[in-house]
Amino acid sequence: MTDSYDVIVIGGGPAGVVTAVTARKYYPEKKILLIKSIGTGVIPCGIPYMFVTLQNPEDNAFGNAPLEKNNIEFLIDEVVAIDRTKKEISTKNDRKFSYDKLVLATGSKAVMPPIPGSEKQGIYLIHKEMSHLKNLKNDIQSAKNIVVLGAGFVGIEFADDISKLKDKKISIIEMKPEVLSGSFDPEFSQLAEEKIKEKGIDLILNTKIESFNGGERVESVTLSNGQTIAADLVIVGAGSVPNSDLAKKAGLEIGEGGGIVVDEYLRTSDMNIFAVGDCAEKRDFFTREKTNVMLASTAAAEARIAGSNLFRIKVIKENKGTIASYSTCVGDLTLGLAGLTETAARRQGFEIIVGNAECLNRHPGTMPGAKKMKLKLIFSRQSGVLLGGQVAGDVSAGEIVNIISMAIQKDFSLTELETLQIATHPKLTAAPTMYPLIVAAQDALKGYKKHEKV
Amino acid sequence: MTDSYDVIVIGGGPAGVVTAVTARKYYPEKKILLIKSIGTGVIPCGIPYMFVTLQNPEDNAFGNAPLEKNNIEFLIDEVVAIDRTKKEISTKNDRKFSYDKLVLATGSKAVMPPIPGSEKQGIYLIHKEMSHLKNLKNDIQSAKNIVVLGAGFVGIEFADDISKLKDKKISIIEMKPEVLSGSFDPEFSQLAEEKIKEKGIDLILNTKIESFNGGERVESVTLSNGQTIAADLVIVGAGSVPNSDLAKKAGLEIGEGGGIVVDEYLRTSDMNIFAVGDCAEKRDFFTREKTNVMLASTAAAEARIAGSNLFRIKVIKENKGTIASYSTCVGDLTLGLAGLTETAARRQGFEIIVGNAECLNRHPGTMPGAKKMKLKLIFSRQSGVLLGGQVAGDVSAGEIVNIISMAIQKDFSLTELETLQIATHPKLTAAPTMYPLIVAAQDALKGYKKHEKV
Repeated sequence: MTDSYDVIVIGGGPAGVVTAVTARKYYPEKKILLIKSIGTGVIPCGIPYMFVTLQNPEDNAFGNAPLEKNNIEFLIDEVVAIDRTKKEISTKNDRKFSYDKLVLATGSKAVMPPIPGSEKQGIYLIHKEMSHLKNLKNDIQSAKNIVVLGAGFVGIEFADDISKLKDKKISIIEMKPEVLSGSFDPEFSQLAEEKIKEKGIDLILNTKIESFNGGERVESVTLSNGQTIAADLVIVGAGSVPNSDLAKKAGLEIGEGGGIVVDEYLRTSDMNIFAVGDCAEKRDFFTREKTNVMLASTAAAEARIAGSNLFRIKVIKENKGTIASYSTCVGDLTLGLAGLTETAARRQGFEIIVGNAECLNRHPGTMPGAKKMKLKLIFSRQSGVLLGGQVAGDVSAGEIVNIISMAIQKDFSLTELETLQIATHPKLTAAPTMYPLIVAAQDALKGYKKHEKV
Repeated sequence: MTDSYDVIVIGGGPAGVVTAVTARKYYPEKKILLIKSIGTGVIPCGIPYMFVTLQNPEDNAFGNAPLEKNNIEFLIDEVVAIDRTKKEISTKNDRKFSYDKLVLATGSKAVMPPIPGSEKQGIYLIHKEMSHLKNLKNDIQSAKNIVVLGAGFVGIEFADDISKLKDKKISIIEMKPEVLSGSFDPEFSQLAEEKIKEKGIDLILNTKIESFNGGERVESVTLSNGQTIAADLVIVGAGSVPNSDLAKKAGLEIGEGGGIVVDEYLRTSDMNIFAVGDCAEKRDFFTREKTNVMLASTAAAEARIAGSNLFRIKVIKENKGTIASYSTCVGDLTLGLAGLTETAARRQGFEIIVGNAECLNRHPGTMPGAKKMKLKLIFSRQSGVLLGGQVAGDVSAGEIVNIISMAIQKDFSLTELETLQIATHPKLTAAPTMYPLIVAAQDALKGYKKHEKV
């Protein structure tokens, strides 16, 4: 017998859960099933903090409460095939379910670079499964020499958190010339590098891992600079690719980068099947080019659009494309970006002007706890439209990046930022006379005086 | 002999200084003079923190560095008359200066309510003069029983800071039924009240001061509830009125509330005279009604518009009116508002729907330092346009209120907030699935189900 549902969501991460919860809000009468392959999942962004900052790995569990509260049935099983003609799916445990609308929220897979010895014990890719991460936690506790492959967000956040443990030697190996490469302009990456070094982490740039050495278990890594360093544990943060195998098998259109092709409303090439989150292809807000942003916040935004529009297009999408919008921490430094970096904007051929601001995050600057803040905005030179912004500062920078993200989404111009009405407070923000978003916009004006060479 | 300037700015607070500095950016060749009556002024928003949080009152000095750096001449003197025909001003020290463009940034005056005994020593109105505030600091140190008149921003922030000193009995007397009345809806005022009480401050609501008693110096206050309480120091935070005497004498048009009438570009009824900041009349963003917002951040926004547009209208103003946008702290609680409260929106006759969100400011909620956050949004029911928002939370709420403020300034709709792309991070923000701005927008949707009675 085939159970029948109005909506079936495949995937139990933020993309899947938010789609299901949103669908429940908009379609209270529909029968919704969510199928997930991982029994106890974790909150993806919290993973780097499961080893030191959080007391127990269980503190980062992604529970079923939102599903239960919203009357969404769920099942732990793996979907192995989609029959689009019958509108039916089948699972590893030989169950079949028919759907009216199907949502693929199958996420992404961490990539292991083709390095000899990568099958050895003690080498960890990061996936969102509790038992896997508990093993990693045990291994971290006993490890002496920890190598982190990759200085992207995953690598940096892991290294930052683990560096709080005593008696560990931590090395980050990155093939690019800077950390968080591509995510920030060099002067912001530089700030992260300084913090990493302050923490006693060995940062080795411009360098690849050539081989993992040892017996059954990894003992050392050989680097492209000839050096061999001890490693009883390796954490691999070398990027992820969309997990679109199921969609591919079902004959849905797949993009070059492996993401499932979707329209503005997250519909795949089959109108009854939606794809949301890391498994879905994204296009850049400014250029419509394919982009590989994989963020839980992006997934949640897509999920809200998909969930509300499953049966009728109710919520007209203002998401004209994906804005990279993220933040990270190293020690007490927060870094955030929304939109294009200067590097990316120039590479994409935009004629730009750039404005910078440096200020203190309190006023007067003598307020206890005042720290430096640095902010950079990129504008289209002639149209004056905001293309991107980067911020470095204290914890509040995590929301300042959202101010920038909103400004991009609603096409704020230089003039609008210059004359912005904002709230300031001595204990909370920069001075009204020095508010960095406004000062950076004013600073960009000087770009009009220079002649841009073509 | 009359010295001649292209621009003369009267007033050395944020409004005056930002106008002068902006004018310098846009008109590098102009001769600019700023005249201020106070030799050493202070940063207005920092005043409540000059007594405990900041080590020395001098730490809150508003220095002349921005003027010197920007080649703006300045003079300590008081302007006593404007001759609009001759385009000339005269000062207390009998100097005369001619201007091409004149900017009035004369600020506001704190109001002393008509209470018998208000002339006694030990009763302080708050003005922005260093020597006055140093006297207050000395008096605070020796005082045992401190009475704060008014539970608005000034009263609450003073009481909050002074309560860190030992062996002081602090009472706040407020005639309204709640603190920060008019600035927040009652459920947010309530949060501030709880914090005030936690700090051991005696909060007496629904009560007026009937008289200040004592000899030359105040010794006690008699309240409208019949009680008499000891008071060797009284701090008056009973509001302010625009300081527009000079403008009035010069025959410029003055509004009902005492503010100088200005157009969209801060020009007074005389095209060559601008008025910015607290002395200028403001109109509400949504209703065009007169509003009495007096904030340094508002003043700075106006100053940037005036400064850039002194000689030609260069920067087309996107300020369609004044948005109240402010934040305050009590203990570790931050409260912020942008736009209309629910109370104000209903009073003004808006048909509204309201959305609420409560969440933690970190994710997972087990992250160290996670604290509750509360957010409320007010939308126009049919048009879906955001009218206002309030937030209570940790320090980041000081920037979240700016996200709301920006959203109002650019007419964000409920749908746009629902599908917003934002950055989230475990150590910095709420979860992507629970981001309070989005959750509150979604929560407001339920308002469509109810029938609004007219």
